[in-house]
Amino acid sequence: MTLRGKFISLEGGEGAGKSTLLAGLQKHLVEQGVALVQTREPGGTPLGEAVRAIVLDAARHDMSAEAELLLMFASRAQLVRERIEPALAAGHWVLCDRFTDASYAYQGGGRGVPKERIALLEQWATEGLTPDLTLLLDLPVATGRARAAGRGEADRIESEADAFFERVRATYRERAAEQPQRFRIIDASLTPAEVLDAAIEATRHLFGAAA
Amino acid sequence: MTLRGKFISLEGGEGAGKSTLLAGLQKHLVEQGVALVQTREPGGTPLGEAVRAIVLDAARHDMSAEAELLLMFASRAQLVRERIEPALAAGHWVLCDRFTDASYAYQGGGRGVPKERIALLEQWATEGLTPDLTLLLDLPVATGRARAAGRGEADRIESEADAFFERVRATYRERAAEQPQRFRIIDASLTPAEVLDAAIEATRHLFGAAA
Repeated sequence: MTLRGKFISLEGGEGAGKSTLLAGLQKHLVEQGVALVQTREPGGTPLGEAVRAIVLDAARHDMSAEAELLLMFASRAQLVRERIEPALAAGHWVLCDRFTDASYAYQGGGRGVPKERIALLEQWATEGLTPDLTLLLDLPVATGRARAAGRGEADRIESEADAFFERVRATYRERAAEQPQRFRIIDASLTPAEVLDAAIEATRHLFGAAA
Repeated sequence: MTLRGKFISLEGGEGAGKSTLLAGLQKHLVEQGVALVQTREPGGTPLGEAVRAIVLDAARHDMSAEAELLLMFASRAQLVRERIEPALAAGHWVLCDRFTDASYAYQGGGRGVPKERIALLEQWATEGLTPDLTLLLDLPVATGRARAAGRGEADRIESEADAFFERVRATYRERAAEQPQRFRIIDASLTPAEVLDAAIEATRHLFGAAA
């Protein structure tokens, strides 16, 4: 019998160092003998990447919060069915750059869609599939934006005002406080090596645990 | 006080003559002094048309029924907020080439998604906005496909097998039978002039009725 794989998501705002951590954590997990599938949201499948291009297009100022959420969940529904569930069932681990928590943070906290409405779509689209571990890279908004400033043109969501990102951060922290078993908050102002160490420490309990 | 406009949707399978009827009905309504907004699904807004291109792309064989429905409702959520509701509120009439009934027929009947699941998305995305009148152009599947055969390459949905379109047709007819006040079934094997006459007759009760 194949043991079901573990599902890790990584969340955090702009400039929090997600990409650096993803690379380091992937390397570590593979060195531990994990068969790892790395993916991202929105995107991760050909369909999802086409949706991503629409959602992040900086020219689409008039997208309603409802259409945005439905697009995010369309990408997610495809990703779960095409990649995440088959991988977990085959015993592979999945490391995903953002997952459903991001919808609660950005469209819920950021845009003000009630969380009960997001929960309805979550249940509809993913049947409530939840990561085994969610690493939240937490950083003051100003620090993150200063770090991200040199990266070229901002996409549609990155172009939001600071108040938007303050609400995003607050929502992430709220969710982490509500689900302490699943979340691990990592102080993203630490050095990349310290952040990676904290993430590795957080994954330790996933090894050897029964599925 | 502005009287709310009337909302007419047009449904029907391949080769049923929707485009011809749309043109004729639009001309008639405008001649009656109606300020008419004509639109279509999926699409009808810049966002919706981008989604349409994804949904109908014949190369996307692996799209899950769930992702397809979420994309359809993303396009619809935007269309309702950006075009349909503002138009109706301003007293304009809206003539829409397909609306939510198409999701019940194609993704419900055609692909087997339970109608209760579609009803959840309908409520979520459109708050149950329902046309005042739905014209269903009904035609045996074989007849419609024979008529449509000369039109060039089929899109992703048009490429489905006959059994799929039989289920689509059955679902449309079922919905029409369940909601006889709203639906008018038109025999699409009649001549274009006869079809137009039947449609015009069906719109007559919309004039002068209180909103």
